[in-house]
Amino acid sequence: MSDANTTALAKALSSAMGEIHQRGWCDGTGGNFSCVLSQQPLRLLMAPSGVHKGSVAPRDLIQVDGEGHVLSGQGKASAETALHLEIIKVCGAGAVLHTHSQAGTLLSQWAIDQAAGGGRGALELKSLEMLKGLEGVKTHDCSVFVPALANDQDLSALSSRANPLLADAPHGLLIAGHGLYAWGRNLGSAMRHLEILEFLLEQRWRQLLLAAITAR
Amino acid sequence: MSDANTTALAKALSSAMGEIHQRGWCDGTGGNFSCVLSQQPLRLLMAPSGVHKGSVAPRDLIQVDGEGHVLSGQGKASAETALHLEIIKVCGAGAVLHTHSQAGTLLSQWAIDQAAGGGRGALELKSLEMLKGLEGVKTHDCSVFVPALANDQDLSALSSRANPLLADAPHGLLIAGHGLYAWGRNLGSAMRHLEILEFLLEQRWRQLLLAAITAR
Amino acid sequence: MSDANTTALAKALSSAMGEIHQRGWCDGTGGNFSCVLSQQPLRLLMAPSGVHKGSVAPRDLIQVDGEGHVLSGQGKASAETALHLEIIKVCGAGAVLHTHSQAGTLLSQWAIDQAAGGGRGALELKSLEMLKGLEGVKTHDCSVFVPALANDQDLSALSSRANPLLADAPHGLLIAGHGLYAWGRNLGSAMRHLEILEFLLEQRWRQLLLAAITAR
Amino acid sequence: MSDANTTALAKALSSAMGEIHQRGWCDGTGGNFSCVLSQQPLRLLMAPSGVHKGSVAPRDLIQVDGEGHVLSGQGKASAETALHLEIIKVCGAGAVLHTHSQAGTLLSQWAIDQAAGGGRGALELKSLEMLKGLEGVKTHDCSVFVPALANDQDLSALSSRANPLLADAPHGLLIAGHGLYAWGRNLGSAMRHLEILEFLLEQRWRQLLLAAITAR
Repeated sequence: MSDANTTALAKALSSAMGEIHQRGWCDGTGGNFSCVLSQQPLRLLMAPSGVHKGSVAPRDLIQVDGEGHVLSGQGKASAETALHLEIIKVCGAGAVLHTHSQAGTLLSQWAIDQAAGGGRGALELKSLEMLKGLEGVKTHDCSVFVPALANDQDLSALSSRANPLLADAPHGLLIAGHGLYAWGRNLGSAMRHLEILEFLLEQRWRQLLLAAITAR
Repeated sequence: MSDANTTALAKALSSAMGEIHQRGWCDGTGGNFSCVLSQQPLRLLMAPSGVHKGSVAPRDLIQVDGEGHVLSGQGKASAETALHLEIIKVCGAGAVLHTHSQAGTLLSQWAIDQAAGGGRGALELKSLEMLKGLEGVKTHDCSVFVPALANDQDLSALSSRANPLLADAPHGLLIAGHGLYAWGRNLGSAMRHLEILEFLLEQRWRQLLLAAITAR
Repeated sequence: MSDANTTALAKALSSAMGEIHQRGWCDGTGGNFSCVLSQQPLRLLMAPSGVHKGSVAPRDLIQVDGEGHVLSGQGKASAETALHLEIIKVCGAGAVLHTHSQAGTLLSQWAIDQAAGGGRGALELKSLEMLKGLEGVKTHDCSVFVPALANDQDLSALSSRANPLLADAPHGLLIAGHGLYAWGRNLGSAMRHLEILEFLLEQRWRQLLLAAITAR
Repeated sequence: MSDANTTALAKALSSAMGEIHQRGWCDGTGGNFSCVLSQQPLRLLMAPSGVHKGSVAPRDLIQVDGEGHVLSGQGKASAETALHLEIIKVCGAGAVLHTHSQAGTLLSQWAIDQAAGGGRGALELKSLEMLKGLEGVKTHDCSVFVPALANDQDLSALSSRANPLLADAPHGLLIAGHGLYAWGRNLGSAMRHLEILEFLLEQRWRQLLLAAITAR
């Protein structure tokens, strides 16, 4: 990718991170965000670890290779880079956006708690027009299952457990008590899927409350 | 309409869409928005299908005729154009704003679930001062019924089912699990009705919660 | 008041209205807002009736006398001007801010429903540090009662019923299913009381939910 | 600290206060915020008491010594300065941010109500990835206890009761019905801990609601 393209993508990613922080989806040092600069060899542009994602200037982004090593820029790559890379390799994603929202943190754990065990579950989203915002979904009249995994500080192990789930995932994966990974062909598509999935998570939360109060 | 008027309306519609996205009422590629440029022959200015409605520049809006065919601009007209046109024809609306809010998505489905069946229901809103923000309502001391229809990917069929309900609708129509259509004589009036109806939907949600916790 | 002072106050009031709309406290054409320009003779600067309060330029404000007649500017004075004037006369207020928030609309009605009848009630707020933001309150360890009245389209009658309650009111009055009137010595003080009371209303709502779920 | 450094810190603190108000965490005259200018002798930069914290210009901040006396600037130091100083002395904090959020106000009281008595309690936060945003926490798989104290208008007494709890506190302390104190090595670190703790408080609130509706 040319320097001009890298500069444009860095601006776009920095701006997206600012918007995402504005919405309360990456408070503190939470969340991480990456874009593919090139596929052959694999090069990512991403935020360094441990910084406030809402105020990262384009020049403060780092470049990382396909094994998660930093090629240029100040700072370390997050351990979560392993899962970004897994998603990029399995799904052909051009951008991965990982958020820590209220609904994502809550319902990811709930999905695991409802499941049979084994640290795996899924959140069902159904009969909602907004599902059509997910690439490949053509009607509201369907069920979409967002896979959920128990959290793990060993990102290599977590990525291995995620691997078999990614190909069928609706551009999103939940990690329990942690948050959402959303992705897409490029940054615009990943942002669209992120907004759609965060909307649907919040909607699912309201549906649970409504079901409880109308069940009396 | 003169070119100057078209330009002014395009700016106003683009700006309104930005505000609506800012409020979280059209995440992802959700929602659609149109203004009438001329009635004879019928010409609409609207957002193209499948784009992020919060960042459509005035020059990226398309012009559409009374059968939903694109006359100028890049991109396709949404299938939902059929329902925009139905509302414009039946109600004499000058602008139609279609949103996907949390409360609209939730309570539209609830209205259908509470109803006798047949894919039709209504949401009652009563004894609220904000009702007076709807054109024609002169007192808080009344009930307003927002009609609700089951969702359908066949927009022609959906528009036909909407037709008999539109003349009496309070400048708003709900589609279940989908969202709100709000309209008015012009863009300003439609925005006013949209803000009022979205406020009332959120209020109705809180009323349901309050009723549940005080019923014990 | 000099022209320069009027201009400065008009700017401050227009800006305050923009902020209040931004917070979702005066959607559609809801709410009304006034400042005292002079006490002898009584002159108010206020928003005209029926407009969107979030986008009123300083030059679009009207001047009104002590009987609610428009002295200058385009547009009508809201019928609610009667209650603004009542508050100004009884409480010596320099500014009155009337909002339609979610919590204010909901809990004003709840306060009436909980009361013995007669269209009067009160919302108790207690043991909260934020109470100290109300002028005259020196400790969190107290109860403050915000009076509430049933809504009435006859603003003259409503103002008469409000009259005996105003002197002891904590710079705030609730109208059921309608919203909050907050006031203060000047615009800054009224804004402070508005923010405090809206915070406390929202907090009271959360307290009710928490009490319900911990009562099991 | 040089004048240039003081100016830069004043700008950063004023800007942080604006952001905090924007999020609804210091409405009215609520909250207070301080930064350490020098440790030997101890000098704080902070907002004066009784003002709207969202609109304090850098030049309107006051300088305060280690006993809470104002050294320069207009206005009084808040009585709460005593608790800021206690935190700075015990924890070596470089900045203290004290907010009045909805969840902080509510759950601080709840923590006291759940406790055995004596005006002391703690809010447990566990198994959440966001805990790792607190300095020193390396895994989600742990419990963090935010200490809570009953509110008291005697800030000297309150500071004495806080003293034994501060060394082990997770960069945060709750005062019942009042709010959160968050701190860090410097302003950036304190802002990070504030965002993390406010996120976790809001999450705890949602967890309580979810537990109630799934317990049926």
